[in-house]
Amino acid sequence: MTRPKSECGSCSSQAALPRAKDKLLFTPGPLTTSLSVKKAMLHDAGSWHSEFNSLVADMRERLLKLAGVSRENGWETVLLQGSGTFGVEAVFQTCVPPEGKVAVLANGAYGERIVQMLTHARIAHAVLRAREDQPVDPMALDQLLAQDRAVTHVAAVHCETTTGILNPIEAIGQVAGKHRKIFVVDAMSSFGAVPIDFEGCGIDFLISSANKCVEGVPGFCFVLCRSEKLLACEGYARSLSLDLLAQFKGFQKNGQFRYTPPTHALLAFSQALDELDQEGGVPARGDRYRLNHETLVTGMRELGFRVFLPASVQSYIITAFHTPADPKFAFDVFYRKLSDRGFIIYPGKLTQVDTFRVGNIGRLFPPDLEQLVGAIRRTLVEMGCAVPVSCG
Amino acid sequence: MTRPKSECGSCSSQAALPRAKDKLLFTPGPLTTSLSVKKAMLHDAGSWHSEFNSLVADMRERLLKLAGVSRENGWETVLLQGSGTFGVEAVFQTCVPPEGKVAVLANGAYGERIVQMLTHARIAHAVLRAREDQPVDPMALDQLLAQDRAVTHVAAVHCETTTGILNPIEAIGQVAGKHRKIFVVDAMSSFGAVPIDFEGCGIDFLISSANKCVEGVPGFCFVLCRSEKLLACEGYARSLSLDLLAQFKGFQKNGQFRYTPPTHALLAFSQALDELDQEGGVPARGDRYRLNHETLVTGMRELGFRVFLPASVQSYIITAFHTPADPKFAFDVFYRKLSDRGFIIYPGKLTQVDTFRVGNIGRLFPPDLEQLVGAIRRTLVEMGCAVPVSCG
Repeated sequence: MTRPKSECGSCSSQAALPRAKDKLLFTPGPLTTSLSVKKAMLHDAGSWHSEFNSLVADMRERLLKLAGVSRENGWETVLLQGSGTFGVEAVFQTCVPPEGKVAVLANGAYGERIVQMLTHARIAHAVLRAREDQPVDPMALDQLLAQDRAVTHVAAVHCETTTGILNPIEAIGQVAGKHRKIFVVDAMSSFGAVPIDFEGCGIDFLISSANKCVEGVPGFCFVLCRSEKLLACEGYARSLSLDLLAQFKGFQKNGQFRYTPPTHALLAFSQALDELDQEGGVPARGDRYRLNHETLVTGMRELGFRVFLPASVQSYIITAFHTPADPKFAFDVFYRKLSDRGFIIYPGKLTQVDTFRVGNIGRLFPPDLEQLVGAIRRTLVEMGCAVPVSCG
Repeated sequence: MTRPKSECGSCSSQAALPRAKDKLLFTPGPLTTSLSVKKAMLHDAGSWHSEFNSLVADMRERLLKLAGVSRENGWETVLLQGSGTFGVEAVFQTCVPPEGKVAVLANGAYGERIVQMLTHARIAHAVLRAREDQPVDPMALDQLLAQDRAVTHVAAVHCETTTGILNPIEAIGQVAGKHRKIFVVDAMSSFGAVPIDFEGCGIDFLISSANKCVEGVPGFCFVLCRSEKLLACEGYARSLSLDLLAQFKGFQKNGQFRYTPPTHALLAFSQALDELDQEGGVPARGDRYRLNHETLVTGMRELGFRVFLPASVQSYIITAFHTPADPKFAFDVFYRKLSDRGFIIYPGKLTQVDTFRVGNIGRLFPPDLEQLVGAIRRTLVEMGCAVPVSCG
């Protein structure tokens, strides 16, 4: 019962597993990450230990810097275990007072998820829905806030990954600010690659996740917020695990997560932040993703596909395409054959019209998108579809 | 902007990082894990993809088997993102009806944490406290349940890692069953190494975590439960993220987590389950941990330390020792010097008396405990303490 020699806890040179290359993920996350980000997880860190807590403190600093805000100007960041949804819910569970009411702007599944959260937590809310292919409407919000004085919070999704649409958070934030409401932004799939002017947008709480544009691995999310707005929420929290204020106080007290953090995902995130810096920060990452998106769209158009959204509101994060009208096209077969070729796109459809979606964030480069388009062409031919396809 | 050659996504032979050996973790988790468990994380899996979902289905099957229960006999398991605390809270947030009341048996920090959860969720509760060095009392529960007919649920912690005490869940479960109450067990640090008779204990819900005795990495937890008890909870959930019933229905519907799972932690867990099987399952792992514990206690006694708990209630998971009376002993210095030698024990004290704690679970073997004891001896000498120490 002695420790096997090969398990000394350090990284031996046998770290390579003989296994086929991973399939590339063209999804909205989890994403394809760099090998160096994954290698950062080859260590066990003590979550109570000062070395680890210094790293956590450093990551929190770097997130504020990435957001273009600072503690001096009243901003804070809180990391929370779980997926991004946990972070969005933590904001509402913690920050809406018992008599509060949230106005939700929704044009897709993630806006609707906020409605579900509020319903579960028995928090009053009003929903302003827009069509999936149209941005949510700041004017409609202005009207609602003029009429419904009970509303205390406004919630919007920046990049609605249901379709890939970008919502006008600056205009929404200005309306929220005019009416003196707290503004909550779900920026899950935009933060880190789409520049966000926190002050200009009047943001109070913004949520994103480790495994999106920062290109870490899933396991935790983070909330960037005005600290005075968070500190004003004493006593509201309806959940212990999702108590964002208590989580913040934990970090202030001893630099620690209150409950066991995903230490390996945090080590990976530190490396991912390094690599984001090395790439040139948010603008450079945005440039790569934009080029990925353009490469994809150009190639897909040559194959006859039509983009679902108008270009004016299309993000460079994920793209929805109309499904070909060809009766020989079956999405399930298409998806599986692409997977067999090493390319995983988002399975199934979430939108109300018949579309499918391709993400282009993560450790992907334009040649990867070119290869995907090539695989799509070969798959269509194999399925007996006429190429270029017709999309109605 | 082409993909660097070395980032093909497969595991290259350069996976070894030139870095010092990791410090060994003598804590209640996160733990020291095997290198092969960590190497399983060198892959990006698509969380919507069938290959990954097959792996998740397989892990759920294996957890039931590990628990000695089966679907045929009415058992289910639900995986949930976040730390173990999220899983414990999910049970209460989901399964206690609006008019429900929970009797909590508490003799340490984790029992008290359940009280905090219930307070946050505005769920009625009664607390039966025992001294930290005494098991919680089934007789007191019997009296409470006879008097307070409003109680619907009973909650207990199996191994209370505050002290390492084992609570008598079989006797508690029998009392809960006699009064027809739902029995919830926090088995965070015991499941996988301490045999648990689910039927004999009358367990309805049991929660544990990936990064405890199964020796995976942190990122998710799991709940083992009687499916009819979970299915009876429709409409109670007060949180969307922590809605255990919706999470279960998600797995039933398409094999998927509702929200982004920690894919890498799940890949690691699959490997950890393999290694638990290879070791010989729960009995063999329990044997190793018991031997670790005995090695630790024997060595510490030789150094003059006294164990805080009576042997009859001491688990082989974590051990609390009285702090030496020697005025030259300062815990902070002791902790730091041990860390410098490559050994991380649990920092600070949680118990009401002056103790410190040493865990012996994770990828640790008796020689590691012998080395730790040797390092403790050298550290005491370096601090100028008389060895053997006196503990009052």
